[in-house]
Amino acid sequence: MKQNVAQKLIQQHLISGEMKPGNEIGLKIDQTLTQDATGTMVMLELEAMGIDRVKTEASAQYVDHNLIQEDFRNADDHLFLRSAARKFGIYYSRPGNGVSHPVHMQQLAKPGKTLLGSDSHTCANGCMGMLAIGAGGIDVAMAMAGEPYHIKMPKVMGVKLTGSLPDWVSAKDVILEMLRRHDVKGGVNKIIEYYGPGLKNLSAMDRHVIANMGAELGATATVFPSDKEIKHFLKQQGREDDWIELTADRGAQYDEEEHIDLSTLEPLIAKPSSPGNVIPVKEIEGETIYQSYIGSSANPGYRDFAIAGEIVKGKEIAAGISFDINPTSRQLLEQLVDNGHIANLLSAGARMHQAGCNGCIGMGQAPATGRNSLRTTPRNFPGRSGTKEDSVFLCSPETAAASALTGEITDPRTLEMKYPKIQEPKKFKTEGMLEAPPSEQASDIELEKGPNITTIPDFEQIEDNFDLPILLKMSDNISTDEILAGGSRVLPFRSNIQKISTFAFEIIDENYYEKAMKKRDSGGHMLLASSNYGQGSSREHAALAPRYLGLKVVLVKDFARIHLQNLINFGILPLTFVDDSDFDHLSQDDILEFRNVHQSIRDGRTLEIQVKGSNRKIEAQHDLTQRHIDIILAGGIINWIKQKQS
Amino acid sequence: MKQNVAQKLIQQHLISGEMKPGNEIGLKIDQTLTQDATGTMVMLELEAMGIDRVKTEASAQYVDHNLIQEDFRNADDHLFLRSAARKFGIYYSRPGNGVSHPVHMQQLAKPGKTLLGSDSHTCANGCMGMLAIGAGGIDVAMAMAGEPYHIKMPKVMGVKLTGSLPDWVSAKDVILEMLRRHDVKGGVNKIIEYYGPGLKNLSAMDRHVIANMGAELGATATVFPSDKEIKHFLKQQGREDDWIELTADRGAQYDEEEHIDLSTLEPLIAKPSSPGNVIPVKEIEGETIYQSYIGSSANPGYRDFAIAGEIVKGKEIAAGISFDINPTSRQLLEQLVDNGHIANLLSAGARMHQAGCNGCIGMGQAPATGRNSLRTTPRNFPGRSGTKEDSVFLCSPETAAASALTGEITDPRTLEMKYPKIQEPKKFKTEGMLEAPPSEQASDIELEKGPNITTIPDFEQIEDNFDLPILLKMSDNISTDEILAGGSRVLPFRSNIQKISTFAFEIIDENYYEKAMKKRDSGGHMLLASSNYGQGSSREHAALAPRYLGLKVVLVKDFARIHLQNLINFGILPLTFVDDSDFDHLSQDDILEFRNVHQSIRDGRTLEIQVKGSNRKIEAQHDLTQRHIDIILAGGIINWIKQKQS
Repeated sequence: MKQNVAQKLIQQHLISGEMKPGNEIGLKIDQTLTQDATGTMVMLELEAMGIDRVKTEASAQYVDHNLIQEDFRNADDHLFLRSAARKFGIYYSRPGNGVSHPVHMQQLAKPGKTLLGSDSHTCANGCMGMLAIGAGGIDVAMAMAGEPYHIKMPKVMGVKLTGSLPDWVSAKDVILEMLRRHDVKGGVNKIIEYYGPGLKNLSAMDRHVIANMGAELGATATVFPSDKEIKHFLKQQGREDDWIELTADRGAQYDEEEHIDLSTLEPLIAKPSSPGNVIPVKEIEGETIYQSYIGSSANPGYRDFAIAGEIVKGKEIAAGISFDINPTSRQLLEQLVDNGHIANLLSAGARMHQAGCNGCIGMGQAPATGRNSLRTTPRNFPGRSGTKEDSVFLCSPETAAASALTGEITDPRTLEMKYPKIQEPKKFKTEGMLEAPPSEQASDIELEKGPNITTIPDFEQIEDNFDLPILLKMSDNISTDEILAGGSRVLPFRSNIQKISTFAFEIIDENYYEKAMKKRDSGGHMLLASSNYGQGSSREHAALAPRYLGLKVVLVKDFARIHLQNLINFGILPLTFVDDSDFDHLSQDDILEFRNVHQSIRDGRTLEIQVKGSNRKIEAQHDLTQRHIDIILAGGIINWIKQKQS
Repeated sequence: MKQNVAQKLIQQHLISGEMKPGNEIGLKIDQTLTQDATGTMVMLELEAMGIDRVKTEASAQYVDHNLIQEDFRNADDHLFLRSAARKFGIYYSRPGNGVSHPVHMQQLAKPGKTLLGSDSHTCANGCMGMLAIGAGGIDVAMAMAGEPYHIKMPKVMGVKLTGSLPDWVSAKDVILEMLRRHDVKGGVNKIIEYYGPGLKNLSAMDRHVIANMGAELGATATVFPSDKEIKHFLKQQGREDDWIELTADRGAQYDEEEHIDLSTLEPLIAKPSSPGNVIPVKEIEGETIYQSYIGSSANPGYRDFAIAGEIVKGKEIAAGISFDINPTSRQLLEQLVDNGHIANLLSAGARMHQAGCNGCIGMGQAPATGRNSLRTTPRNFPGRSGTKEDSVFLCSPETAAASALTGEITDPRTLEMKYPKIQEPKKFKTEGMLEAPPSEQASDIELEKGPNITTIPDFEQIEDNFDLPILLKMSDNISTDEILAGGSRVLPFRSNIQKISTFAFEIIDENYYEKAMKKRDSGGHMLLASSNYGQGSSREHAALAPRYLGLKVVLVKDFARIHLQNLINFGILPLTFVDDSDFDHLSQDDILEFRNVHQSIRDGRTLEIQVKGSNRKIEAQHDLTQRHIDIILAGGIINWIKQKQS
């Protein structure tokens, strides 16, 4: 059968399941990527699993998210991550080296491989002819331990590219066009695969821009073929030998079809506060701005900075504008320095920041209240910039640089200059970026844990017979932000389960922590909620923290997908009502009597649960796979893998 | 009479008083400097005074302290400061332009002038043959309004420099030698004046390093002559016309004498946690480090970065080390970029930060717990780095760079290389740094106030007869940190008196705010304390916030100097006991009856105060000058200047 690139990548890594859209499939993972915001927990999970050395072909730990270091916590995390990288056999990229996705692309990405990363923009490396997927931390930890990664087989949307981009239009405008057409849910449960004659006009880094923001389409992954352009890129990196050709079979089919004629595109911009809110720049010209911001994994290439430098060369940015440059990586910055582009930016008035994610994830560079900020970053969700009532626009480096000069939103085609042509270096600097781990197993290396980094507690398996009080009864659409808030108050404790647990459910019931701690040693507790429980951010702490506080069962009308997976991973039994009207008949502080639980869930039978002190009975059920059941009965995925590997 | 440079500068600016050490003198102020951390309040004070345009020869507002922008507050402050600079006729240096002291030196400093700045390192510009003094915000606001600045006439300590520095020893080692000899109080109530044949071997920027850390000696100011070296520096800046010669008369005398033979110096280092804790580097060689940090106003020169670049050129810093480079200014960075020095630093593994104060004032780059951090910054007070239990060493760029390579504290003389010679650019880039204000008065310009920036409330003058309850009775040595804490929780509200007041005295009595608010509209309250009340940081909010909450009188055994000045400035009556034993006979919640206050303090008479509901009387006195009395009876210095100017 003729296959597209996505299908080839999946088939070559298929361990279980059938490649039919919607079916659960298990995939072999070749490479992993973690960053500091999610990586500390991944490393603690590897420790808890008793892993000696990762089993992937290459795993890398980047430090790019939290670089500000306002107190000891960030710096301690960096030292911890380095020690863990050395202990477990992982490449380490130190703070200041740059953003994980482009650095991984330059240093380790290989066509034909799978990459799982604990960052939602991991999909960016799909530009290299890889199957690159973002996932939760423990999923990545499992992949590092050699376990397959399970997803539902996605549909493949083929996007045929023809023509070539006009002057002043670049890769960012291509993905903005996709977002204009399909909005932020258009890619859900799909792999987006680009192909066609237009590809030859898009460099590997241009493709990175497009693949990166596949995340904003909601896609599972974005895939490009590995063609001559990728060969050229690998040659620039001194890794030509890593190239293999990987293209779709002639006549291969796609589940859905799309077509973009690149020559018809114009500068586009996503208005506040959704990446899908796309219009032509010319429709909004003249709006005054506070900030113009260039960088992030959504515009990481040499050309993205060089062209901005050429546009502002010999000029001065408008008074009062904050012109923020976030270099992608230390090496790329060095090369931009060597070739005069950074001097052009500085001379025009740029604020030059350390290489890293910085403002893209709200780590500094927040705009002023109510003022417009133009950014080449991937997301403009409300408040993500750090300013609650922000007004962030997403655009290309050309549009951002042009607007910095004028002080207002400007279609770069209106500048009175020729479109600069950027000559990329023949060879990129690549040395000294990743610190390779010891070549042999190094179990004697100690994990360096500062006072804010604690070991993950051991969890016991669920008993067969037990009584549980309902500690909270919650309504519809409870989000993980309500279960465990994010933000700079809570997240510094991401490596400290004991401490972060004190924040659990505080928005819903400020006494939850104390009440749960009281019940913790006398059997624990359960939670009751209505529909769509656990929507929102994928943070696994929203399962881990309540689990630490003694949560054993969550009973709801239905679950949000990722949180359900997190509950299973941490050994919490997720049940749904057989009859939703039972929800109304249960009250906070009711005690439910669970009996013969193990056999019931193994058999897939409904559980009959008595409400203590009454004659009411309710029925609960689950929708767990055999693997899920094994994990829950082991007390969570960490115990499960320990049993499996012992 | 033969005069030294300090005496000449004072005499040329003397408005009142006699130049006898200890006497109060009033000085004409030619230039002012404010930074963002203190400048927002200065601008609000100018607004409250009803000033249309500053009366100095040149005033400049720099944005260098708070550049992180985690939320809207910093960015809003930047916009506010720019609007105020334009309204009041002040030069504006935007965020990312760099550190106030070296930028002021390059752009505006003039030999023979006085400079008052709301930053304790303002003294750095003494390197230019200026009298440059750090002061509280409202003192600087008054100078901007054309008022003289009052200090006690300091003694002058003459430091004769002979010889020239050996290889691997630089200006930082000179000031560390002064700190080794005189410790952190050795300069109190003194001006340090450097002279002698050794001067010719120290560039203007070398002298900046030495003058800057005069603050760490506790000196009122540091003064260098304006000689050929200063002429050369001004020529490099394209401002040769601003040069005048200013040197000590032959045979001029000093109140104290000191001598340093530069040729005998060696690399020095200040151990944690005091700048006075100085030893030779060789005595502590081999201690492992976490961080090496180059930059700040205590090593801002082109050579300071260039030499670090030459030392690490072609090498790689030790694994796990954070090698942080904080460029001084955007223009200097551009020139270091042009000449290849930045590429050398990046290639070796440096983290390149935005130009500004950054880690020097704990705004990021905090070290890991308990790990050694080597810094070229001026201060290593405990916790200033942002890490509570830090271990910060102060040293030269040579020592910092050498240690980054080895990963341990290293005497740079042990490196196997020749001491690099740095060639400074003939001409420095100077364009596009300061935004000049409108040339004419611009009262129509609106102050741009974000939601966190509020106007200073109006304050009324103290009544003649009133009763006040004692809201707090406090012990000895209450610091301004206890009156109003600093830190990232409180300081973001520095432009919002209403909000910052909620934190007042919370360490001493968490109910103070509520209790004070209750009394506020029914006559206000007073405070009672023992000895050394108001020691520590000079922050004027420690007077302003309680004043806003209705504080009218503070009665103590004795005051710390700066806080006393702040109380007067904000119209709070500072009284001391005639008989200290009365302190023991007063209790919290006692009500004191003040009668005929105006005439009593005008006459310098003791106040007889009845304790309400008892037959006890106590006596209180003051030590106020006529100017102080006028200020207090006007209701504070803002009202006083308004009356004076109307």
